[in-house]
Amino acid sequence: MSSPSIGTRPKTTENVRAGKASQPDTRNLDSYVNKIRTDFESRLGHMVEIPTVSMDPAHKADITRGADAAVELLRACGATSAEAVPTSGNPVVVGEFKTGNPAHPTITIYNHMDVQPAQEPEWKQEPFKFRKDGDRYFGRGSTDDKGPGITALFAARYAADNRIPLNIRFVWEFEEEIGSPHFEEFLKKKLPSLATDSVLVSDTIWLSASKPAIPYGLRGLQPARLVLRTGGKDAHSGLTGGAARNPIGELAQVISKLYDARTGKVFIPGFYKDVVKPTATEIKSFKASGFNVKSFQAAHELHSLRTTNPLDVMVRIWASPTLEVHGIVGGYTGPGVKTVVPPFAEAKVSMRLVPKQDPSKAFALLKKAVKAINKDVEVHEESGLVPYDGPFTGPYADAAREAVQFGFGTTPAFIREGGSIGAVVTMQKHLKAPIMCIGLSLPEHGYHAPNENYDWGQARGGIRTFVHYFSKVAGMR
Amino acid sequence: MSSPSIGTRPKTTENVRAGKASQPDTRNLDSYVNKIRTDFESRLGHMVEIPTVSMDPAHKADITRGADAAVELLRACGATSAEAVPTSGNPVVVGEFKTGNPAHPTITIYNHMDVQPAQEPEWKQEPFKFRKDGDRYFGRGSTDDKGPGITALFAARYAADNRIPLNIRFVWEFEEEIGSPHFEEFLKKKLPSLATDSVLVSDTIWLSASKPAIPYGLRGLQPARLVLRTGGKDAHSGLTGGAARNPIGELAQVISKLYDARTGKVFIPGFYKDVVKPTATEIKSFKASGFNVKSFQAAHELHSLRTTNPLDVMVRIWASPTLEVHGIVGGYTGPGVKTVVPPFAEAKVSMRLVPKQDPSKAFALLKKAVKAINKDVEVHEESGLVPYDGPFTGPYADAAREAVQFGFGTTPAFIREGGSIGAVVTMQKHLKAPIMCIGLSLPEHGYHAPNENYDWGQARGGIRTFVHYFSKVAGMR
Repeated sequence: MSSPSIGTRPKTTENVRAGKASQPDTRNLDSYVNKIRTDFESRLGHMVEIPTVSMDPAHKADITRGADAAVELLRACGATSAEAVPTSGNPVVVGEFKTGNPAHPTITIYNHMDVQPAQEPEWKQEPFKFRKDGDRYFGRGSTDDKGPGITALFAARYAADNRIPLNIRFVWEFEEEIGSPHFEEFLKKKLPSLATDSVLVSDTIWLSASKPAIPYGLRGLQPARLVLRTGGKDAHSGLTGGAARNPIGELAQVISKLYDARTGKVFIPGFYKDVVKPTATEIKSFKASGFNVKSFQAAHELHSLRTTNPLDVMVRIWASPTLEVHGIVGGYTGPGVKTVVPPFAEAKVSMRLVPKQDPSKAFALLKKAVKAINKDVEVHEESGLVPYDGPFTGPYADAAREAVQFGFGTTPAFIREGGSIGAVVTMQKHLKAPIMCIGLSLPEHGYHAPNENYDWGQARGGIRTFVHYFSKVAGMR
Repeated sequence: MSSPSIGTRPKTTENVRAGKASQPDTRNLDSYVNKIRTDFESRLGHMVEIPTVSMDPAHKADITRGADAAVELLRACGATSAEAVPTSGNPVVVGEFKTGNPAHPTITIYNHMDVQPAQEPEWKQEPFKFRKDGDRYFGRGSTDDKGPGITALFAARYAADNRIPLNIRFVWEFEEEIGSPHFEEFLKKKLPSLATDSVLVSDTIWLSASKPAIPYGLRGLQPARLVLRTGGKDAHSGLTGGAARNPIGELAQVISKLYDARTGKVFIPGFYKDVVKPTATEIKSFKASGFNVKSFQAAHELHSLRTTNPLDVMVRIWASPTLEVHGIVGGYTGPGVKTVVPPFAEAKVSMRLVPKQDPSKAFALLKKAVKAINKDVEVHEESGLVPYDGPFTGPYADAAREAVQFGFGTTPAFIREGGSIGAVVTMQKHLKAPIMCIGLSLPEHGYHAPNENYDWGQARGGIRTFVHYFSKVAGMR
């Protein structure tokens, strides 16, 4: 297997064309990384300060602004072309670094540039104000997923400057956080022009700050809203209590009949039917992953867990389905106790799904179960995500392992991950190319959490990792 | 039984001293009522626009401003003295209309000038902007309880102007909506100077717009906050879900083990033990009250009820204890579904209590039951209210019946009421005087609800009612 020539040696069209490659020259790469740091930070800061919250319609204009800025950013970093592709929902930004030689293989790098809302009271700063504190970068979206995306972009810039014989295509989505409802529409629309030899996704999280992870499986997701309206306005619980229905009480009853929150066991009939349990090989690899319960708890600030057995925790978060309640709307939430009977309540729930579970089927089971408990509760479907089950052996896995070793000086664990990236499954279906998930985020970066951050150590190692990976896959066709 | 002389006839010290009374001269009273309308509206508007929200510490300065304005108001309407009496909590405003003759009986009129919060999204106007729409007055506190309080004040002004031989004392509380935590302290402190022959409370609600009610019983109240903290920040449900505890799910489980929200049946061991069921006489009087399920539902905008049997509804709202959930704090409540595992949840609950149930005992039972279900849930006690059980026969009841008949041209029903007024029980204990609850609010005025309002018809009839009642009780000693 050949790999491209990069480094300080004079580059010629000849040795690029020959597809000849060696290990990247670290001195040159390191000086590049040091040189671009200020530029990297200012580009990241600019993107973080655009509040591209896809979940909130109030941020529609920010999404447009974010997509324009993303096109600008790609061009500024040397993309040979960049455009925002409109869909029925938010646009998808596509940027290309073409070598000019169609014989060179193509890699597609997926990231998303939309972010979670940031209304948590625990934020110690304006969430959409970029703040640099030493090597650490704070702000919503810094690690999920703007930081890793821009890290990959700076790696691509190096690859282009150093003529790595690889066509690099960026696909930046703006609807990942709402389940990628129009990503398939985008893929179908642009399909012939999106042909690729492999896909790299950088939107996943390490096991810990010292243990990189390459997830080969992702859980699926099916969110839903359970809504119960029993009145037109807040009623006085003295004047009506006893006769009036209480929608929060009734939803609490529904929830507690859907699952046992203490153990996590889901009571929805048929829920576990299609679940494929992890194989013995996988369990062995989980055990060897270096997963540590204490570090996991510390990173996510979980005071206690449903279980502290390490394997049980891993199987629960990577390979088991869940039901979760994310919030209950309706009723009084200010200081003290206001004795109202609220007129309606909405529970925001979701199910994480594992291979062979189907989101639509899971929703149908949920709806049936809810209606059997309380027929007045409306069950609203939100965009679902199919679980992902990918390869963890073969040349791309080997290249990824070597690249991480080169970038960070330590080997990654091949694990499953508990999160969901809808686009991954859609790309698997339409692009029919191997997908590798090389994430750069750390548990303590706070995905979806207040005071989200990213750091220079991960960006620096990330650029090194991706450059090495590019040099490897440039030779695979 | 003598009653005082009032009306257009020239008043002399003699006929006042004689305690001689007749029916009030309606022409004079009606012309008074018409004359003061503009003044009444501007005074009510001024008080409504001071957001005296006792539940929210952020409104502390407004409470002080409200107490100052109340003292002003009493003086402006002819009180011979008025002062704000400080307590360890909010002040209590006392205003006196003294005849100068200590031989005249004294009536104490209780109202409260604090209000509920007004954060409901359904408000069609600024809640603390007074708005007059024809005969209707909108704004938080307009009916609960500033409107009825100021109505009584204008009746007192008439009584003073027309020399009804009755000393009238106003006691205006500013902590009623948080369970009157310092009202007993106030009563004890000022006790000798608060000696009274009877008490009039105007903070209750009619059965319907055409059926006045005089409640002789009120439910007690014991609110509590159930708090569960399982983490330090929002966690990502993909990365942690399955292993992480879910505090909303666990509180939902606790709630559904405390009561059946569908039927209202409370499962807390010992909860119903001390309940005194309504007597056969009371049930007969409930049945004769004219209570109408459809009007009740319409007034409170309740789309459906736990039962539609009229007697069952009355017994439930007037004479049965409840458990209620008022709101759940914690988790995501914005648009869509944000898939977080929240770090904590708080359920705001309360129990309405009926005669012989004790708030402290009910709290102890609740706490024990919660701890038995989930020992990690903290159970925080809020200020409780003892149920009230008063007389519904005797001279004051007769006077009240006649007064309402005079004021509104229809007889009131003697019923129990489902709401709670903590001060009533405290006054019963310390003032040892008969208490009559002559309320002016209508179900459609929206106690504790968005778009709260009061109206001129109730104010006008209220002044007539109170003047008549004063003339009656002036003769009772």
